[in-house]
Amino acid sequence: MKLQVAFDCGCNTRTICDCVDRISGYMDFIEVGTPLIIEKGLSTVRELRPRYPHLKILADLKIMDGGFYEANAAFEAGADIVTALAAAEDATLKGAVEAAAKHGGEIMVDTIAHPDLPRRIGELDAMGADYICLHTAKDTQGSGRDFAAFMREMRGFVRHAKLALAGGINPENIESYTSMAPDVIIIGEGITGASDPAKAAGIVREKMGAH
Amino acid sequence: MKLQVAFDCGCNTRTICDCVDRISGYMDFIEVGTPLIIEKGLSTVRELRPRYPHLKILADLKIMDGGFYEANAAFEAGADIVTALAAAEDATLKGAVEAAAKHGGEIMVDTIAHPDLPRRIGELDAMGADYICLHTAKDTQGSGRDFAAFMREMRGFVRHAKLALAGGINPENIESYTSMAPDVIIIGEGITGASDPAKAAGIVREKMGAH
Repeated sequence: MKLQVAFDCGCNTRTICDCVDRISGYMDFIEVGTPLIIEKGLSTVRELRPRYPHLKILADLKIMDGGFYEANAAFEAGADIVTALAAAEDATLKGAVEAAAKHGGEIMVDTIAHPDLPRRIGELDAMGADYICLHTAKDTQGSGRDFAAFMREMRGFVRHAKLALAGGINPENIESYTSMAPDVIIIGEGITGASDPAKAAGIVREKMGAH
Repeated sequence: MKLQVAFDCGCNTRTICDCVDRISGYMDFIEVGTPLIIEKGLSTVRELRPRYPHLKILADLKIMDGGFYEANAAFEAGADIVTALAAAEDATLKGAVEAAAKHGGEIMVDTIAHPDLPRRIGELDAMGADYICLHTAKDTQGSGRDFAAFMREMRGFVRHAKLALAGGINPENIESYTSMAPDVIIIGEGITGASDPAKAAGIVREKMGAH
């Protein structure tokens, strides 16, 4: 089970490095979050790349159009994994997968807000998504959806892709997510916003350890 | 009928200014396209803002999560209009609309790849979308969908929002779009990639003129 730490609102390259330097032993993927892409573009990916050769960098572009072009730009900037949206047209997702193949990178498809996931997950898997992320939107966290039942259902539709979980996960509630045995757990403020990020990441990694 | 000119792949602030300076008399909205946001973040919006006080600047963020936060960042950078996706959760779109209200800005909702538009358009209108954009993805242009029939159907679901059309429009085919009487026509490479952008924009504006 891999730990992806997401850096979003209010971060910059310096604050990300300050945090990653303290928790890099616990984590696997650095996520350059969408708000940061909106603010700074791919410069953050370029700045982080040489500093953390042992960690994968994920660029959370949430691609919805121009699949090849947009994913290609992020891979060229140094990303290992780029996100696209399950809601995008198949042609867009195939373009993103093609860009990943060109660079030896990977595509994570974010299922956020998708209305018909059981059907869509099988399609995403068949199109070559490396990861499929079950993601509760920031704007609807706490609305009481049953993630666990969802996860069980989803597993039945996936043959190749790894499954990731995101949305409101933190050191306090992580056991209810690790128990679903995803391949990747994505945590943002639960670690980056903790008073002691190293302690939070350590707790998370310990609870992930059994899986 | 307003003309929005989209600046996408391969543009930077200098090349945008070179083009806008030649066509500003024909256009209404400058679109800072998604590929440019991915490359440079909001810096392009900040650089264009003081130079074109008489033109509206649209930041094509295609917001899918963090509606208030992401839209707010773009309005603070100087955007007049910010895009969000029809595929986003209602809470996300309402957050974006709230950020627009705070800044006196507007939200354009991009319906790209949405599978159930007749139902969704009415919801977008009721949530306060200022513009609803019927958008054929770059990755599926030329796939033969009947835009005109679509447009007629959509009009029946809208009470307040203005309608925009985007996706593969150029000086050669524009009359088939102006005949649908949208409120906004969005053109990218059909103008920015023309050998003479001023001539292309002039032709477009002339053909829009009757509407």
